[in-house]
Amino acid sequence: MTEDTTEKTKKKVSASDFFNKDVVSIRDFSKEQIDFVLELAKEIEERPRLYSEAMKRKIMVPLFFEPSSRTCTSFQMAMMRMGGSVLDFDVEQSSIKKGETLKDTAVMFRGYKPDVVVIRHPLEGSAKLFADIVGFPVINAGDGKNQHPTQTILDLYTIKEILGDINGAKIGIVGDLKYGRTTHSLSFALSRYSGVNMIYVSPDELRMPSSICTESRNNGARIIEKPLKDLERVISDVDILYMTRIQRERFPKGDEGERQYAQICSEYRLTIKMLERAGNKNVKIMHPKPKIDEIEAEIDDSEYAYYPKQEANGVYNREAILFLILGGQKI
Amino acid sequence: MTEDTTEKTKKKVSASDFFNKDVVSIRDFSKEQIDFVLELAKEIEERPRLYSEAMKRKIMVPLFFEPSSRTCTSFQMAMMRMGGSVLDFDVEQSSIKKGETLKDTAVMFRGYKPDVVVIRHPLEGSAKLFADIVGFPVINAGDGKNQHPTQTILDLYTIKEILGDINGAKIGIVGDLKYGRTTHSLSFALSRYSGVNMIYVSPDELRMPSSICTESRNNGARIIEKPLKDLERVISDVDILYMTRIQRERFPKGDEGERQYAQICSEYRLTIKMLERAGNKNVKIMHPKPKIDEIEAEIDDSEYAYYPKQEANGVYNREAILFLILGGQKI
Amino acid sequence: MTEDTTEKTKKKVSASDFFNKDVVSIRDFSKEQIDFVLELAKEIEERPRLYSEAMKRKIMVPLFFEPSSRTCTSFQMAMMRMGGSVLDFDVEQSSIKKGETLKDTAVMFRGYKPDVVVIRHPLEGSAKLFADIVGFPVINAGDGKNQHPTQTILDLYTIKEILGDINGAKIGIVGDLKYGRTTHSLSFALSRYSGVNMIYVSPDELRMPSSICTESRNNGARIIEKPLKDLERVISDVDILYMTRIQRERFPKGDEGERQYAQICSEYRLTIKMLERAGNKNVKIMHPKPKIDEIEAEIDDSEYAYYPKQEANGVYNREAILFLILGGQKI
Repeated sequence: MTEDTTEKTKKKVSASDFFNKDVVSIRDFSKEQIDFVLELAKEIEERPRLYSEAMKRKIMVPLFFEPSSRTCTSFQMAMMRMGGSVLDFDVEQSSIKKGETLKDTAVMFRGYKPDVVVIRHPLEGSAKLFADIVGFPVINAGDGKNQHPTQTILDLYTIKEILGDINGAKIGIVGDLKYGRTTHSLSFALSRYSGVNMIYVSPDELRMPSSICTESRNNGARIIEKPLKDLERVISDVDILYMTRIQRERFPKGDEGERQYAQICSEYRLTIKMLERAGNKNVKIMHPKPKIDEIEAEIDDSEYAYYPKQEANGVYNREAILFLILGGQKI
Repeated sequence: MTEDTTEKTKKKVSASDFFNKDVVSIRDFSKEQIDFVLELAKEIEERPRLYSEAMKRKIMVPLFFEPSSRTCTSFQMAMMRMGGSVLDFDVEQSSIKKGETLKDTAVMFRGYKPDVVVIRHPLEGSAKLFADIVGFPVINAGDGKNQHPTQTILDLYTIKEILGDINGAKIGIVGDLKYGRTTHSLSFALSRYSGVNMIYVSPDELRMPSSICTESRNNGARIIEKPLKDLERVISDVDILYMTRIQRERFPKGDEGERQYAQICSEYRLTIKMLERAGNKNVKIMHPKPKIDEIEAEIDDSEYAYYPKQEANGVYNREAILFLILGGQKI
Repeated sequence: MTEDTTEKTKKKVSASDFFNKDVVSIRDFSKEQIDFVLELAKEIEERPRLYSEAMKRKIMVPLFFEPSSRTCTSFQMAMMRMGGSVLDFDVEQSSIKKGETLKDTAVMFRGYKPDVVVIRHPLEGSAKLFADIVGFPVINAGDGKNQHPTQTILDLYTIKEILGDINGAKIGIVGDLKYGRTTHSLSFALSRYSGVNMIYVSPDELRMPSSICTESRNNGARIIEKPLKDLERVISDVDILYMTRIQRERFPKGDEGERQYAQICSEYRLTIKMLERAGNKNVKIMHPKPKIDEIEAEIDDSEYAYYPKQEANGVYNREAILFLILGGQKI
């Protein structure tokens, strides 16, 4: 799916577009292809029984070189709900501890031929490197600061679920916009829909890279940047507030990084009071999780909190992706 | 199963009593309900083939925040023998490491909807907290010093297997009776049978809490407390000797806790000589395992040792519980 | 399969020879039995579909007390490809951390009755000890410096695949021949074929134990020993070059061990230049993996490198072994 997609967008999308393909970057998909995935995910959510044998005899390997709860668990749930098997590969107990390179690990899996590998690795480009070696589909579950495409797909699904239509969405994207790969991919993906408004809200040190701003604008989105102190005013103005965690692990190591991190965290916290003062009863909050202190616990049980359903959506969308790239069969 | 059970005990127990329920405390079950589980476990032990498809398409998540061999492994065995799937959730690799709360982890699983979670967590009440959030059955596999109900069920199964009937059993319960949740639940559960004699044998520092003594007496059990030095005399007087490990992890941290622990361990050790001197050839030894040095290795291969069968019983009883709460089907 | 095999070698080998047996040492198999396994593995490689239900309802437990990538992963792949289940047993999270003995762990599994345990443990003889307790088949996946029989089987499969016939093979075995259990078992196994030439190439400190040399010679093999500096000349003279890793973990702990290890590593490195100078275009390189720096990365993508196929062969051969000892059924 790395070929140029301008031609493809004119063709009707079909399941065969996805078969045996890697999912390395959200850019591997055309907007129409993403819509196709979202529709399938919707059917899987509504009629799970039809897909309960779809991954029979298929083997997935989750290969997580960095901690993960949601991505790893929801991929496993997705595979198991469709009757597939999940191999347990513990990086900590592996030959990587004996000094083996990622390339050698990839060569090993090329030989072992599971049906799909889901990989998270701190190095940018690692998923691509892996995919180029193995000869079966690879799904990127996060390569450092770079990409995490299935997160973007479940985010789009959730936005569509909330608003009925992604076109015309007005979304505040808040938090660490510098290091947060999630917000980069989401901005790009949203900008391909028509009439999308995005308001980037971040501490000054963590502003969205200008390349992302420019690209989203070029795609036709309306982009505004706001400092963190304007958060309340932004809330009153958007349909959806997409919050993100300040990721300690993306800051520089050592004292200076620690100080910077602590300072920002102390200023970045959404409270129920802020939501009430903003006076936008319909605003829905999304968050890719895990969250730490950036959202006050009281919000979790309010009507504002859409992030529990958002994370649940992760399973349906990952089922859809696995189904498509592995060529699953409905009952 | 947290509602009042006095009414229920008068009704005939049926499988539907258990469907979709949590197993958080042994107190969630009436005596009659426990007998129902024990009978099903017996059938599963004798006719495993009939249950080999019972968990087809069901997914269990073991969520172990503390080390476990037997509980975690036997639950997995139980699920797999009945054709179910087990999701691998590694707490060490999870978002809990990024600072996520147990509540947020529970909210995540509420969205992911596995069929059952088996949870062990150091915090008392954690299983209940988790169960109240998720909306599918949760089995408590140990919440700190509090409860571990499936251990009690397999213990009762084993006692019934040894003696033919739990009523009238005469049992020495030995070791750490202060911190050992196993002995607390077992005392309560046994006290509901008629004519049960329990002799508590412990170091003075680790005596059974008086609340447990009182409750068991109120339920009609005959309770005697003995110091550790009387162990031999107790052996000659009981049907079953239920030994427990002195749990280092339940003692206070630091030097004083360490000293206390070492002192007690040095005095607490059952030997084959003690058993021979006691002259009770029929006494059977039980132990919830793991054991360290409290039982001399020679005993393992003797007729006295019933703990190997006891641990094997863990699988049948956990199969029975899973079968009931998930509504399994026999072939 | 520990009984004397001289009688058996005269009989026709059949699948029933293997049923319910342990695989602890390569010596448990006669040459004819190994050939039988290799033939089955070949059929599994060529017609995997016929074996895709063979392990239905069977449960394998990988019990790895030392790191492993290939062995553990390929056993899991083997089991899952044949429709079996794999139980997750994490040694780090187990009662072994509470001080439990290997014997007690074995007694536990005797009670839990999985269909097979695959064990790796640093202690020589551990797999045998475990197998003698449990009462179901056990496969040794490496017991310290001692045995790793399934590695030898996949090595023989690979040699046969390269040369068409193991008889008459001319093989250089290179690296750590002192501590490397792989090379010991392979030498023994090869020596039972006729007309086999083996050239042992190693640093002086890591020469093949004389007992292995003697036994292989007594079995009829031609053995020559060479120092590491003669590696190039050896290459020009053999069909296959079997490289091994210098295993840091087998050296003595501490500074002296570290120094020895670093010294040897600096001298031990196969380069593409060496291969070109040797002028033997047909030589194939094998390696049990993981490899570190002993093979220059350029070689990986050359015609010389046979180790990628060698590791892929691990799955087919482990499928064959599981199929035989668990009595699998073809479709």
